[in-house]
Amino acid sequence: MSALRVAIGQVDSTVGDFTGNADRIRAVVTDSVAGGADLVLFPHMVLTGYPLGDLAGSTAFQAAAESALTSVARDVPDDVVVVLGTLGTDDEGRPFPKAVVIQDGEITTHTRGDGAPEDDATGQTLTVGGFRFGVSTGTELTGAGSSPQDGALDALLVLYASPFEVGHQAARDRLRRACAGKFGVPMFAANLVGGQDDLIFDGDSCVTGRDGAVVLRCPAFREDVLFVDFDGSTPRAADPAYVEPPQSDPVGEIYEAITLGLRDYVRKNGFDKVILGLSGGIDSALVATMACDAIGAANVIAVSMPSAYSTQHSRDDAAALAKATGLDYRVQPINTLVDAVQQELALSGVAEENLQARLRGLILMAISNSEGGLVLAPGNKSELAVGYSTIYGDAVGGFAPICDVLKTMVWQLATWRNTQARHRGEPEPIPQHTITKPASAELRPGQQDSDTLPRYDELDALLHAYLGERRSAAELIAAGFAPQTVQRVMRMVAGAEWKRRQYPLGPRVTSWALDRDLHLPVTSAWQEQID
Amino acid sequence: MSALRVAIGQVDSTVGDFTGNADRIRAVVTDSVAGGADLVLFPHMVLTGYPLGDLAGSTAFQAAAESALTSVARDVPDDVVVVLGTLGTDDEGRPFPKAVVIQDGEITTHTRGDGAPEDDATGQTLTVGGFRFGVSTGTELTGAGSSPQDGALDALLVLYASPFEVGHQAARDRLRRACAGKFGVPMFAANLVGGQDDLIFDGDSCVTGRDGAVVLRCPAFREDVLFVDFDGSTPRAADPAYVEPPQSDPVGEIYEAITLGLRDYVRKNGFDKVILGLSGGIDSALVATMACDAIGAANVIAVSMPSAYSTQHSRDDAAALAKATGLDYRVQPINTLVDAVQQELALSGVAEENLQARLRGLILMAISNSEGGLVLAPGNKSELAVGYSTIYGDAVGGFAPICDVLKTMVWQLATWRNTQARHRGEPEPIPQHTITKPASAELRPGQQDSDTLPRYDELDALLHAYLGERRSAAELIAAGFAPQTVQRVMRMVAGAEWKRRQYPLGPRVTSWALDRDLHLPVTSAWQEQID
Repeated sequence: MSALRVAIGQVDSTVGDFTGNADRIRAVVTDSVAGGADLVLFPHMVLTGYPLGDLAGSTAFQAAAESALTSVARDVPDDVVVVLGTLGTDDEGRPFPKAVVIQDGEITTHTRGDGAPEDDATGQTLTVGGFRFGVSTGTELTGAGSSPQDGALDALLVLYASPFEVGHQAARDRLRRACAGKFGVPMFAANLVGGQDDLIFDGDSCVTGRDGAVVLRCPAFREDVLFVDFDGSTPRAADPAYVEPPQSDPVGEIYEAITLGLRDYVRKNGFDKVILGLSGGIDSALVATMACDAIGAANVIAVSMPSAYSTQHSRDDAAALAKATGLDYRVQPINTLVDAVQQELALSGVAEENLQARLRGLILMAISNSEGGLVLAPGNKSELAVGYSTIYGDAVGGFAPICDVLKTMVWQLATWRNTQARHRGEPEPIPQHTITKPASAELRPGQQDSDTLPRYDELDALLHAYLGERRSAAELIAAGFAPQTVQRVMRMVAGAEWKRRQYPLGPRVTSWALDRDLHLPVTSAWQEQID
Repeated sequence: MSALRVAIGQVDSTVGDFTGNADRIRAVVTDSVAGGADLVLFPHMVLTGYPLGDLAGSTAFQAAAESALTSVARDVPDDVVVVLGTLGTDDEGRPFPKAVVIQDGEITTHTRGDGAPEDDATGQTLTVGGFRFGVSTGTELTGAGSSPQDGALDALLVLYASPFEVGHQAARDRLRRACAGKFGVPMFAANLVGGQDDLIFDGDSCVTGRDGAVVLRCPAFREDVLFVDFDGSTPRAADPAYVEPPQSDPVGEIYEAITLGLRDYVRKNGFDKVILGLSGGIDSALVATMACDAIGAANVIAVSMPSAYSTQHSRDDAAALAKATGLDYRVQPINTLVDAVQQELALSGVAEENLQARLRGLILMAISNSEGGLVLAPGNKSELAVGYSTIYGDAVGGFAPICDVLKTMVWQLATWRNTQARHRGEPEPIPQHTITKPASAELRPGQQDSDTLPRYDELDALLHAYLGERRSAAELIAAGFAPQTVQRVMRMVAGAEWKRRQYPLGPRVTSWALDRDLHLPVTSAWQEQID
């Protein structure tokens, strides 16, 4: 058998954008052919975007997908084979994800899969250049499915749509090894890249050897085409200068994932700018910096809205960030508005605190209504878990970039970003004082988060153990958390569910995102007994 | 065989309230024994409440359920058999709903079911007074499961947790007939009653003959104990004065369902009052009236918040409703606040309109923060579907009573409620003018909903066909809807998804509730082609 060149197209599709997705596929095919490819592999559901929700059941959507497939196939040259994922329908009109092969002007549906070659391996194989490939599609590689007869396959083609979460790349590498151990052949795997609502597809498309160890990999968090030569033994990079992309550190990959998710949310929803309040605190400082990295500082409107309780250092910190990043900085004090409302309503306590946050929310939404632009909510995961935020106040917005980031990680991300800037010889975007000062909502004189909440290192560890690892109160106490703290935090988590339900969506970066992965009833009398 | 008396306990459980639920079960058992019952049947998951979400996976919750069961069983007298639904765990600790039988001081797990007797009918039967009963539990009666050998069973005991939706009672009656046709024996079926977040369990517990036709039925939307005598033939009411509860008309049952859902949300979440804005329009008038019916007018704070654009007739209509119902009426004009914000921000157009709505939301939340009380959002389903509401304005609140009610049904409900009042010789709560005047948000001079939206009869018919029946654009146009209207409404529905995600929960009364039953991506480029 001769050698074959495979191109893996790691592309960023948009749900329902058949014209755009088809154009992107065509462009990659053209580039792949120019690069000498015999076979081009695309991800799961690349033509439709993913996930589709109810759109998958729409007959008009299904018809548009078929039409786009026909149109793409028409433009595939005869000297190349294209394998891509799209939406199919069975005989009863039910939708299912399928992999199709475009070869010699013909479209064949090759598999409906769960990420593993089907039992009927002979019916699911594809022959190109004398090599037999198994084809499978799905959201994750499961390692399920039967092994074909010995020697029946030369390699596997896997079409993924596997979203990012911290540590997921290592988990996928383990799955690949397990699967390869079963089939004993190299694997070519194409994953989607890009943001879709709360999900961030990280790419991480790759090629393994017979033992399932990754030998080639696309860079994460961006589009890429990887050219691979295959002669039946371990695949090799077509480009002799290929270097495996460096693996991001765990903090950096979260930063990159969120900026990708934010950029794609803005772009795919037709916005050209974002708007947020800039308090001088760490949360809004990080979100502002991420927004500048995602869509450019000129497209980021940041509004300082000081009240009588805002400290001078916070105002200075906000201004310093604005200067360092170059974003569109505005100052709109709220004292006059607070006074006007107070003359009518004479609020005190929590009502007065929330009033300030809500007037700020009102101002941001007014700017959005007047000038366009997506409002970003700066709430972090620790706050959302325990309800330490003002609904309709700091919670307003269409997208919440750090809603799946615990407060301790917020500080780490800020530090990481500043370190990157230093390495690049750029000014640090986030003022050191913003990182080092005690956290405060500044809604009353001298207020600090620690008045109301446990220390963030303790709170975050507790939240991770309780919500991430699903530990019981007894287990948490046995692990060393104070019983009163456990009880208090459990009550706060339960009591905040109604607010979380109304929070804007934002990028999921862990396996225990509060919206997608946590399913608590709002109405519940349940409290774990603490002895 | 002698005759047996069966009591069906249709009770309103609260999720996680083991003490309260167990007490309620004990009280019904005591009453049932006093009423001569040999067997007491309770609904699915009656001891834990339902549905549980992630709570079902909590080992502490599972242990508390077991403990509550032991405690209940201890108090069951030896001369009665109790069958109830609760949460079980399998050998690997996975939770599943189970039916347990408490008989002679023993607790036996009788089935884990899908609403139909299991294949192994002999293992799933219960013998009381010489009669053999099949036992099954689940959310709906499915009619699945195998028929046992002829003559093996004398009757079926079915434990339900089947939520209300319009027309559901008739659908259940059809399922019962289908199931009885298979088993050919009478059926005793106990359903939960009461609200749990967006779901309303309507009760409708019942008894059928061998042909599956309902012969006895509990009243809907309230707790009840039904005593039934069974001698092997068609069951009869123990009370010779039993009269089948009249079936509500389709409008009335929606009204009753919502008031139950609202009352239970308020009560189970520990509120003692509700707060809402009262504009003089139909939506807030209906919600205020429902709230008065649900928890008493003295516990309903209704705030008129006129702006410069509020008409005198709307202010008068709000005051008239307040007078007719006796609710806690307050007037808080917003002109001063609008002026204060406008001096700072100088908003116009939609931004100015939304400002008024947001200041009203801010006032309601300030009252809630100051005085306690649950804020009710008055948005109807037609508005939510197309996004005709102000997020963080009229959308604020913890519960949205009519979020699954189309505008045309809002008018019908208001008329139905006034008719009820006339029949009872009471004053009509909702001013006629509120019902008859053209709908308007009154956010600019002379504004009417019809400036922006199709006529509500057309819009509602279109929404039902598009979202309820999942018709394509081509089908909608073939059915007579104008192509431009179809296109416009489809775009509005897609564009409002981000706002719907942040809307408060509210009672589901149809099979196509916008939150539970509609799953649209926020980010989507999909538009059906309109020729």
